[in-house]
Amino acid sequence: MSRPAHRRPEYHKINKDLFVLTYGALVAQLCKDYEKDEDVNQYLDKMGYGIGTRLIEDFLARSCVGRCHSYSEITDIIAQVAFKMYLGITPSVICNNSSRNEFSLILDKNPLVEFVEELPAGRSSLCYCNLLCGIIRGALEMVHLAADVTFLQDRLKGDSVTEIGITFLKKRDEKKYRWKK
Amino acid sequence: MSRPAHRRPEYHKINKDLFVLTYGALVAQLCKDYEKDEDVNQYLDKMGYGIGTRLIEDFLARSCVGRCHSYSEITDIIAQVAFKMYLGITPSVICNNSSRNEFSLILDKNPLVEFVEELPAGRSSLCYCNLLCGIIRGALEMVHLAADVTFLQDRLKGDSVTEIGITFLKKRDEKKYRWKK
Repeated sequence: MSRPAHRRPEYHKINKDLFVLTYGALVAQLCKDYEKDEDVNQYLDKMGYGIGTRLIEDFLARSCVGRCHSYSEITDIIAQVAFKMYLGITPSVICNNSSRNEFSLILDKNPLVEFVEELPAGRSSLCYCNLLCGIIRGALEMVHLAADVTFLQDRLKGDSVTEIGITFLKKRDEKKYRWKK
Repeated sequence: MSRPAHRRPEYHKINKDLFVLTYGALVAQLCKDYEKDEDVNQYLDKMGYGIGTRLIEDFLARSCVGRCHSYSEITDIIAQVAFKMYLGITPSVICNNSSRNEFSLILDKNPLVEFVEELPAGRSSLCYCNLLCGIIRGALEMVHLAADVTFLQDRLKGDSVTEIGITFLKKRDEKKYRWKK
């Protein structure tokens, strides 16, 4: 029996440019609404959190990822499955500490800024892609994994790469995690 | 010689759910910013126009569409190539008048509202997807085709289908059009 159209993977695939430009319009609107970069950053994170809490269900259904044994495995899935699925890129992963609860996603390429030459004038503290941090945080929270997620480096700010830091807040690395709500 | 990664079609393909949820966040933000539905609709159209003027170049480069001989052909390309590429759907096309400058795109399915059950309370005049009209209008204007683009029916408002009307403003159907800026 063939799968119904709405479950076929190709049905869900679109060219990303419309998304990238729409995201730019969203950031521009928030810059219009909020004078302080910190407020825009916070709002993007908050919006992203809401998106992440909804996206995770869809992600689990489509990706068929199973049980994870460590924060390291979870971060690998975020980089290799989730980023690939939703942004078409695969960041590399670095573990930053010996207790193995702090990781970095290194984005050599960031599709969200493909149409952005530089940060808008007077917006030097803007975390343009902060929605991503909120999404990761929201999605992780829905599978009972509290985490801090922030940009540590950003090419738009002159850094050589873009780096997202993920710190899992409970230092338990041995327990087995299911990607279940 | 293989094509560089950034030109490979699959590099540009992403799952659409992140876009759909981000679009929802944009509309929610505008509803917060503007009290009147008409203002939100107008702003979405304006934003879409800006996006369309940027998207068209990318569309022409990727789609390799050639010379068009009529408004009818142009509308078919919007439905069959552009909608497929950016939203993953193919609306059907109806010509609405004998002078062949008025068309409708009929969307049986609208991915942009997949996560939307109904219009927000007190927002009965909201054209939730009005960004699409602006995008089409902006893209057409960049290839010197002035058009009015509006929603004629909307499932979110209880209609049986979603219908986007495109009226080409110059009633010349015989001239040959190139999809060139």
